[in-house]
Amino acid sequence: MISQVRPDGTLRHLITLEGLSRELIERLLERSQGFVRPLGARRPDSDSLAGFTVANLFTEPSTRTRVSFELAAKRLGADVVNLEVQLSSRVKGESMLDTVFTLQALHVDAMVIRDAEAGVTAAVAASVATHVSVLSAGEAHVSHPTQGLLDALTVRQHKERFDNLSIAIVGDIRHSRVARSDYHAFRTLGCPDLRIVAPPALMPAAEEFAGCSRHNSLRTGLKDVDVVIMLRIQKERMGQADLPDADRYFAKYGLTPERLTGARPDAIVMHPQPMNRGIEISSDVADGPQSVIRDQVRNGVAVRMAVLEEVLTGADTE
Amino acid sequence: MISQVRPDGTLRHLITLEGLSRELIERLLERSQGFVRPLGARRPDSDSLAGFTVANLFTEPSTRTRVSFELAAKRLGADVVNLEVQLSSRVKGESMLDTVFTLQALHVDAMVIRDAEAGVTAAVAASVATHVSVLSAGEAHVSHPTQGLLDALTVRQHKERFDNLSIAIVGDIRHSRVARSDYHAFRTLGCPDLRIVAPPALMPAAEEFAGCSRHNSLRTGLKDVDVVIMLRIQKERMGQADLPDADRYFAKYGLTPERLTGARPDAIVMHPQPMNRGIEISSDVADGPQSVIRDQVRNGVAVRMAVLEEVLTGADTE
Amino acid sequence: MISQVRPDGTLRHLITLEGLSRELIERLLERSQGFVRPLGARRPDSDSLAGFTVANLFTEPSTRTRVSFELAAKRLGADVVNLEVQLSSRVKGESMLDTVFTLQALHVDAMVIRDAEAGVTAAVAASVATHVSVLSAGEAHVSHPTQGLLDALTVRQHKERFDNLSIAIVGDIRHSRVARSDYHAFRTLGCPDLRIVAPPALMPAAEEFAGCSRHNSLRTGLKDVDVVIMLRIQKERMGQADLPDADRYFAKYGLTPERLTGARPDAIVMHPQPMNRGIEISSDVADGPQSVIRDQVRNGVAVRMAVLEEVLTGADTE
Repeated sequence: MISQVRPDGTLRHLITLEGLSRELIERLLERSQGFVRPLGARRPDSDSLAGFTVANLFTEPSTRTRVSFELAAKRLGADVVNLEVQLSSRVKGESMLDTVFTLQALHVDAMVIRDAEAGVTAAVAASVATHVSVLSAGEAHVSHPTQGLLDALTVRQHKERFDNLSIAIVGDIRHSRVARSDYHAFRTLGCPDLRIVAPPALMPAAEEFAGCSRHNSLRTGLKDVDVVIMLRIQKERMGQADLPDADRYFAKYGLTPERLTGARPDAIVMHPQPMNRGIEISSDVADGPQSVIRDQVRNGVAVRMAVLEEVLTGADTE
Repeated sequence: MISQVRPDGTLRHLITLEGLSRELIERLLERSQGFVRPLGARRPDSDSLAGFTVANLFTEPSTRTRVSFELAAKRLGADVVNLEVQLSSRVKGESMLDTVFTLQALHVDAMVIRDAEAGVTAAVAASVATHVSVLSAGEAHVSHPTQGLLDALTVRQHKERFDNLSIAIVGDIRHSRVARSDYHAFRTLGCPDLRIVAPPALMPAAEEFAGCSRHNSLRTGLKDVDVVIMLRIQKERMGQADLPDADRYFAKYGLTPERLTGARPDAIVMHPQPMNRGIEISSDVADGPQSVIRDQVRNGVAVRMAVLEEVLTGADTE
Repeated sequence: MISQVRPDGTLRHLITLEGLSRELIERLLERSQGFVRPLGARRPDSDSLAGFTVANLFTEPSTRTRVSFELAAKRLGADVVNLEVQLSSRVKGESMLDTVFTLQALHVDAMVIRDAEAGVTAAVAASVATHVSVLSAGEAHVSHPTQGLLDALTVRQHKERFDNLSIAIVGDIRHSRVARSDYHAFRTLGCPDLRIVAPPALMPAAEEFAGCSRHNSLRTGLKDVDVVIMLRIQKERMGQADLPDADRYFAKYGLTPERLTGARPDAIVMHPQPMNRGIEISSDVADGPQSVIRDQVRNGVAVRMAVLEEVLTGADTE
């Protein structure tokens, strides 16, 4: 595995949160917080990334994460190009690395990659020149590091510290890159009580999520927690294998106002979106006073600005 | 219906021209005229929208209207993102409003929406935060307000005043959002003789287009008019139901130089494009001396610059 | 055929390299060289094209050439819009020229066109207003002028002069726009020994490539050459008609380290990409010490910056 951190301690790539130091993650959160602005507030001018080029390499073009990265880069003055590519497969006979070297030769400084195939992003990072940074925008079920950071930032805005928090992640843990990146973020930040809540068929393998307590019951899983993170469940899985259909899933694992009363009164509710309202979460909760779901989106831009600035201007001073 | 106008009289949203005051429309036309420049003239620098973000939400990506809005926004210094979305349907289970709130949380200041489903744009406008503006780029058969404004601007450049004009709109009135927005623009601006000309099957319901005279004959419809606006006819409708096939349609409703002689000698000919040459209009007329069709496109950018500046910088001073 | 050059000698359009003077091509290469920068070097600020608008009209959106033009334009401060259009066919009944006039009325200053139909780009160039420039980004099998220039620039960076060079172009010459543009570039620059190497079925018509020697054997074709340009072969053609299958093609025409020893020891190897590794070229050669394939990509941006600046700022001083 290639190092994500430069000798001087700055971030060079962001493929996974696993292995990043608490100090580095806290610095990134601090830096991100500096980019947070209230809805409707005018944005301060910044051209810190003028002259840099960011390429968004997405397998599908219209995702919120793509737009979030695109706006983050533009708001710092970078040039952005969007490409719809599947790095994992061979497009027109061109291998993944030829595509990467081509982008590098076009003077792309940062490649933001969303890929359905695990390992592709790290393989790209291992291949690029030293001045190029690679950022994951979501990799298979494995990791979604900027989501992990924005979730940590959101928690940090509402809770003073991590070392006394109880956090529950609820839903399809097994297939979730969000759950894995959240896990790495919260563990590294010192969260002492991290719980995963899922039906047995959606629990991850035993060797994963070390140190988390596992709950098949939403009631015990949410008991007195400070933070509830609901995951999106693929409708296609509903009713398949050992899974209940959508109605029964909601009855057992859907977050309702009533069920939320089991958590602490000041608990916050999060969701990475898009939501299946009425399946994993009721609209009463999603739009209710404890929901910070829209804050997450806003924080996502701030985190991506901070990460882009860190990896690109860090390289600058090498 | 949400108000499109702020308490201070500035425009906040633009969903329809219906109900806008003559004073406001005239002010928008005046402001638009300030952005008109001759072909090939260098553009004056403007950064009036620097720091603002405009999102183009189109159901298809490659339309002239999308490009027109995109260039209008960029030429005033705004950041622009293009998204291909269908707000009316549920994409990946995500409701329309979740998409809208996500964009808002990404600090999008103006959403430009083209939608095939009537009512969607107004529903979005009713939901966004007070600093966000919603602009229709064409809504089903209902309205296309910037087209109405650019058509009015085009007429204004060639005719001194509206209150002595005869204007004929010809073609598929029933299904045309352009006809409806033109109708609202010209009525509000005081046009005393507004005619709609169509085969019976393409006439709108009796309660629509109040105050217009209705003509099934192109000859009487064009008689001594100052302005002829030809509409695009969907080829798919030709020969169906009560409609003639393309050849017969052209024979009866196609605008030829000969037919145009029935209008005033200084009449101008307009078309919102794309044209079906040889069906609703002959190339002789489309490319002839009375055609101002290319002016319409040029005016479209100016109108969109004016509207974007009005809604965004108006909000700024709230 | 419309003139590509203005009365003052500056380039106005770039449809083909055929007929351009040696002086003009050398000036473009000189200008391009000024935009070349090493990988990772910070880019000098330039706003020479601020206020100009470049439209990329591509039949498919995700090509390296589109990105190369887009980045070239953005790095000089131009506004860029991407449109996916097929100018050759009638889209929604709109003729090619209506699209072109619409873009012109939107104040597009340069149209970059990739088209599968021969003649379309020249037809557009013949129709636009005098302040508008048309650039080919690849036209059927006919021409790819910026590729020809970037290939010439790449050779120029490694060899002192053209008038003592032996250059071999190898592969599907018959269907290659790259081969045709390279031919025009190298002939005009004075290359005395230009060879085309192909199986008989992929040789061009006898009246084309005048002055080139023709080789069916890779061995004689590469003998003592200074430059080897390998072309992409469409896999679909393999095994069809008079063509061998992929394995046999590679055995006969694929460039391996061993075969390359027939060329001069300091020969450089080029390929326009994307490569079919193991069909027309082995990875040992593609990634080997004599390969300058990645330089070609980097030079492509520089050439497109130079050409855009030449055609747009030349127009400025008219």
